[in-house]
Formats: sequence, C-alpha cells, structure tokens
Amino acid sequence: MRTLKLTLAYDGTAYAGWQVQPGKTTVQGTLEAALSKVTGHFVRVLASGRTDAGVHARGQVVGFQTGSELAPDVLQKALNAVLPPDVAVLDVAEAAEGFHAIRDAVRKRYRYVIHDGPVRDVFGRAYAWHCRRRLDDEAMHRAAQVLSGTHDFSSFETSGAPRVSSVRTVSHISVGRAGDCPVFRPTDATSQNRADRKTGLSPSGDDSSVDEHFLLIDVEADGFLYNMVRTIVGTLVEVGRGAEPEHWVGQVLEATDRRRAGPTAPPEGLFLMQVDY
Amino acid sequence: MRTLKLTLAYDGTAYAGWQVQPGKTTVQGTLEAALSKVTGHFVRVLASGRTDAGVHARGQVVGFQTGSELAPDVLQKALNAVLPPDVAVLDVAEAAEGFHAIRDAVRKRYRYVIHDGPVRDVFGRAYAWHCRRRLDDEAMHRAAQVLSGTHDFSSFETSGAPRVSSVRTVSHISVGRAGDCPVFRPTDATSQNRADRKTGLSPSGDDSSVDEHFLLIDVEADGFLYNMVRTIVGTLVEVGRGAEPEHWVGQVLEATDRRRAGPTAPPEGLFLMQVDY
Repeated sequence: MRTLKLTLAYDGTAYAGWQVQPGKTTVQGTLEAALSKVTGHFVRVLASGRTDAGVHARGQVVGFQTGSELAPDVLQKALNAVLPPDVAVLDVAEAAEGFHAIRDAVRKRYRYVIHDGPVRDVFGRAYAWHCRRRLDDEAMHRAAQVLSGTHDFSSFETSGAPRVSSVRTVSHISVGRAGDCPVFRPTDATSQNRADRKTGLSPSGDDSSVDEHFLLIDVEADGFLYNMVRTIVGTLVEVGRGAEPEHWVGQVLEATDRRRAGPTAPPEGLFLMQVDY
Repeated sequence: MRTLKLTLAYDGTAYAGWQVQPGKTTVQGTLEAALSKVTGHFVRVLASGRTDAGVHARGQVVGFQTGSELAPDVLQKALNAVLPPDVAVLDVAEAAEGFHAIRDAVRKRYRYVIHDGPVRDVFGRAYAWHCRRRLDDEAMHRAAQVLSGTHDFSSFETSGAPRVSSVRTVSHISVGRAGDCPVFRPTDATSQNRADRKTGLSPSGDDSSVDEHFLLIDVEADGFLYNMVRTIVGTLVEVGRGAEPEHWVGQVLEATDRRRAGPTAPPEGLFLMQVDY
C-alpha cells in the first residue's frame, strides 16, 4: 500500500459540504467514488478539515492509502477525467507512511471574499458575500490586527463543537480591496498591458476609474475553530459598516464568549486556500 | 409613455440565449416578466443584439416603453428584487423618444476569456474556454492586428445569417494575460497591498510566482456579424497553439470564406461588455 497526498479545488455551491452524509452529495463522497473507480478498490480519504455546505476550496489536502501502482500524474489525469467539473485534482504526491492530513497540518490559510457594491454581481453570487453598503476596509484591517498572535478564540467559535483547547495562533490577518478580475470586475487590463502596441482607437470602455468592490479577508493560523473565519468576518463587517468601533474587536476577543461577536458570515464567500505540512 | 434605456448584466449559463423562445428560459423572457410585474403592464424590450445560449453580458443595453411613472432608481431596485440572482439591472436611464437599441448603437465591445492551464479551473468553468495547452498570447496579439480597421469579415461569420453587408470596422483588438482575480487565480494581492502594515509572519501561501493562466481577448467594433468574436477567437487560438503562422489570419480575412477560418470558440468564454450610443 502507498500513501498519497492529494491537493484539491472545488466549487462548494452544489455540495452539502465536505463530509460524507447518507443521501446527500458531498465532496468527500464524490472524490471517494472517483478514487474507487480509478484505483479499482474502495478508498477512504482523510481531509485536512471539513468544509461546510457552500464553502469552496482552492487547496484542500487529503491523504489516502491505495494498492494502485499508477504514477501520480497518471492518477491525477484519470481522476480529473471522472470527477465532475466543479471538483479538480491540482496535485498528487507520494507521502510518507503514516501521513495524517489533520494532525500533520502546521498552518492553514483561508480567504473570505465580500462584494460591497450596491448591485449584486451576477458572476460573483456564489463566490462572495454581498454587502450592499460600502465597507471601510481600512478600519477593518486595523481592527483585525488585535487577532494576530496566540489567543483563546472562544468568542469566534460556534458552540456545540467542543475542543480540548480553543487557543490558536493567527500568523497573518489582512483586509484589502481586490485587484481587478477579468470576470467579476473587468477593467481594461489587457489594453493597458498592450498600450505600447495598440493600434487604432483606444477602447471607449475604460472603466479603470470604477471603484473596486471586492474585499479580500485573508487569515492564516496554525488551526481554526469551527466557523472561526466566518465569525471573524461577521465581526469585522460590524466595524466596516460603522456599527462598532475598531477597539470593539479586542473586547470581543477578551470576552471569550461567542454571544459578544458579530454574526456568522455566509458560507459562499469562504475559500480554503492552502494547507502547509 | 416613456422610453427607458436599461443596462443589464447576466450569467448566461442557465439560459437558452437572449431571445424569447417558446418553452425555453431566456434572458429576454425573464426580463420582460420582471418588467411586466414591476410596471403592471406587458413590456416588450429590444436589445442591442441577441446573445447565444451560454454567452454572458456585463453591459447589455435594452430599450423599452412604459406607462409606469416610477423613478429610474426605484425601477432598478424593484427589478433587481424580482429578477433571479443571475440577472441584474446595472442602470436605468430615460432615453429620447424613438431610441432604438440596435440602430442607435455606434460601438460594441466584447471580451473573450480563455483559461490555458493544464487542470480545469473549477471557478472559471462557466466563464472561460479551457484550452489545456499554454497558448502564445504574444503571437495571438500580433496576428490579431491585421483585423483592426475596416474589412469584409465574411470569413468570420457563421453562414445562414444573411446581412446586407459583412463589412465592419474593428477599432480595437488585443490579446493579453489577465491580471489576478480573487477567485479564479488568488494571489496574495491583499497582503502585498498591506505590506507596510503587516504584523506577524508573512503568509506562506505566496503564489505570486504562479503563471497567469487566463487570456483576455478584447474586440471593439461598430458592429459584429453572427459568431464573429467566437470565430476570431477560434482562429487566433490556431495561431496561439502553433498550428498556423501569424500571417495566416490575414489570409483568412482576405479569403472572405468561413471555411478558411478556425473553429467557433464555445459560448461560455464570451462576454458582451459594453454598447456605446
């Protein structure tokens, strides 16, 4: 038996979350079905962590054991051929025997995307939380810095998920406006890049003056409590919309009481970006 | 009766194109149902042009007449409240009596998005044409310039769509790699922007060295023949993948024969970006 480590991207929109549940379509179930088809035997995978219904991944990591002797790149191509279009295997690598996708993870990074334009973005509707009023991203970024470092994050943990410890170390947290995106917010990046070679009239549709309406909230930590990123985001949005002052976030943290934090942000804006081992 | 001009964005994935067809869900039918509900009378709209099934719009323009006395911004909000999430009204404005969305259009701009990474992008699957092999975007850009200016574009028109003239004037055409996108290709734009204020460790997930795998092809003209952008893109991709030399595009243009051009690129990469009046 070999141990393999697989890196996965998925659009969580159509799934009832990661974990296998009877009668529901889940990402884990979909992946295991594809692996079983490709390897010829039933495969059970272990992911770095579960993601909830509607949550996306750019870099989920799973480990599994297989008797298959297929080379990693062959396995990757075969899996991508049988997986549905909203799940893709980005990488397959040999792992040391005993590799454990949860225990061996040393750091994870999540990104949360907010769209704060007045009109919904039809292309971002499944990939961003739509807040109609413009948020003060500078205030949110400043307010978030109190969460950096080692703290008891009980205030940002959805109850009903008991853990040995709710102390985690946040190594990075930032809030900023997104760069331009070819689909979500198309500016004329192309013709700007090509300005030196441009022929004919310049395109009239120069929307480079349009404000950027996507906020990216990046959080990196050694581990995350249940709903931690979504609760941090819901709390920072209270600051961004002016309902609470910047120093309130520190008070929420110190309270170690979930009832003091803001609401849990919806799942569609959340992306598991990377897991380091 | 007032004449109104409405600017619309839609995700074309779920629609059988723009134009009303019996028994099918179309964008026009969906918009007219919403307008009829909001104005209290049946409304027929005229768009700047039809879009095919799966084609998207960031700036489709439609004109219509209404007896409603609702202010433009009230009408916009009411429409967005009743429209499905994949259609949004970006703007409502009063138009001169006799405004004709087709005849009065002086310039249109389309964007075509290609993803040329080896593994499909799960978030871009409905918004880009996936070409697995990396394309030579510089060669495509150079080859495209022969299409700039006033020409008979018969080679780039799907037959069965007779027109008085197939002469059009392309005022801009460019091919370039896309800037980063928070969802499609997330790099650490945020933490770079915030480098001066960063606390704690820098995020390990620095993927700024990752190649950009999205190509944007922008075409602006005074009008477009049926499938013209998609045929231009299919032709340029032949150059980009090295199957044809750069000067071949000029030969295709001069031939005024659709059989000489490349294949028609699929609809999901195409966006109607802007219509000027």
